[in-house]
Amino acid sequence: MAITVVGSVAYDSIETPAGRKDRCLGGAATYFSLAASFFTDVRVIAVVGEDFGPEQEAVFQARKIDTLGIERAAGKSFFWEGSYLENLNEAKTHTTDLNVFASFEPKIPAPYRDSEYLFLANIDPVLQKRVREEMPGVRLVAGDTMNYWIKDHRPALMEVLKGLDVLLINDTEARMLAANNNLVQAARGVLELGPQTLIVKHGEYGATAFFSDRSFPAKYPSPKHAFRAPALPLEEVVDPTGAGDSFAGGFFGYLASQPELTPAVFRRAMFYGSVMGSYACERFGTERLQELSRKEIEARFDVFRELTHLD
Amino acid sequence: MAITVVGSVAYDSIETPAGRKDRCLGGAATYFSLAASFFTDVRVIAVVGEDFGPEQEAVFQARKIDTLGIERAAGKSFFWEGSYLENLNEAKTHTTDLNVFASFEPKIPAPYRDSEYLFLANIDPVLQKRVREEMPGVRLVAGDTMNYWIKDHRPALMEVLKGLDVLLINDTEARMLAANNNLVQAARGVLELGPQTLIVKHGEYGATAFFSDRSFPAKYPSPKHAFRAPALPLEEVVDPTGAGDSFAGGFFGYLASQPELTPAVFRRAMFYGSVMGSYACERFGTERLQELSRKEIEARFDVFRELTHLD
Repeated sequence: MAITVVGSVAYDSIETPAGRKDRCLGGAATYFSLAASFFTDVRVIAVVGEDFGPEQEAVFQARKIDTLGIERAAGKSFFWEGSYLENLNEAKTHTTDLNVFASFEPKIPAPYRDSEYLFLANIDPVLQKRVREEMPGVRLVAGDTMNYWIKDHRPALMEVLKGLDVLLINDTEARMLAANNNLVQAARGVLELGPQTLIVKHGEYGATAFFSDRSFPAKYPSPKHAFRAPALPLEEVVDPTGAGDSFAGGFFGYLASQPELTPAVFRRAMFYGSVMGSYACERFGTERLQELSRKEIEARFDVFRELTHLD
Repeated sequence: MAITVVGSVAYDSIETPAGRKDRCLGGAATYFSLAASFFTDVRVIAVVGEDFGPEQEAVFQARKIDTLGIERAAGKSFFWEGSYLENLNEAKTHTTDLNVFASFEPKIPAPYRDSEYLFLANIDPVLQKRVREEMPGVRLVAGDTMNYWIKDHRPALMEVLKGLDVLLINDTEARMLAANNNLVQAARGVLELGPQTLIVKHGEYGATAFFSDRSFPAKYPSPKHAFRAPALPLEEVVDPTGAGDSFAGGFFGYLASQPELTPAVFRRAMFYGSVMGSYACERFGTERLQELSRKEIEARFDVFRELTHLD
């Protein structure tokens, strides 16, 4: 079933211990769609500037991602510059030029409206809410956010949370959102704000899903415990940019490819999220995701099983 | 099969967000033995002062731990005072009084010499090496160390590493020991220093075992990948002191209880390590380990399986 994703399509200049790359294709919606496209149809809503040309368009086309909703505006695309020289788990931002993104007004193309899955990538919660409301018929909505919105746009964010089935954020964001330093207590607090399920991303340590009694259809007994997917210990993390969005794409893409949201499907989706996040780190920008094959994805899924399973 | 452990038996004064407790029974050898005692016979080599009385002795007796090797010396026991007020993953040390530990000369009681397993808890590598050499017939030797020995006593530590089968240290220590920030590369570096297997403890994120082609008897194919055991997301971490030593005790205790060191046994041992580490955090000092039952251990083992397994 098709996923519509709204978020940023951008250019990133990135410096890591492995080197430097200028103006890679980036943005949360880009990483998300590439990762999800290995599992299901993906439709993107974003805005780009005049610097977004056939070469970038081709990256989406090669993965059969629907770009009808990528609006072309006068000016430059969103640009981000950052480095991970001291800590591969946390980017240091040097430049954020919103450019055409500053006046982004998401428009949902008519053919997107039958999408059964909706992903609200990390953008202004006011826009997330608007898109959510314009697609009332979706089967499952997941979303992301960041410390900036949690701190300075809390009321708008609270409105978004009410309409989410699954929220994906990192440790610091979860603790900040619930104003609680204990992750289990913080998770419970976040689940009371709306989402049925919370996925907390731990960077190089993987991710944990916290469930509520609304996480699954009533016929499935609610999991008593959280579920933890590891990250793959990588020989070389070339560029961690987009790993979290790729996790989200793999996770949500796999969910959307399955007939029903069962606890077992959810657990496999967490593993596919980790698989896509691990691949994203192996090269700069979206390079690795662009050349990935489903066979490689399955092979790494098996590695994750070996990495965690007793038998 | 019996384990001999050499290390500290001490008093700890601990402050955490959950409260404060003065002069709890502590020390690496204490946590290790209590945790391991649920799986196999444990024999302790340590030194204590005149402040170590029948009440403390009874804690070991209740778990049938052999204390013949706990030497009584004139003076006070090792005392540590620390807090975890800002970060539950890292203790801030306020006081370290070595006391009788300053002149500790480990003596191995004759009945300990047939022990088939040896654990060298975090003490001066010169002493670790001496004990290792005096027990040449052991089947498996594991050990721990810390940043202080890595930084300022590297040559002595290098000698210890040559005689270890399994080294258990944390992320920071592994990176420091190999002088490499990438954990996978650091692990490979450490494995070249002697240990056949390296376990890196990640605090609240669990632990990862890195294998070499010498990790298991030749008839078992060497695991191609690492193995990661999670930690349990805990509602309340009352006191993380001793969690790593309890992990080591659960891990090594389970290994010693099994007829053969197979990859499957090793994986289960990692889970038992996580189980014991999680219990240790639930109360101050050794309180939770003292009142634990094997039934509770098995129940939590099942929780860890649920937390990580796809099916």
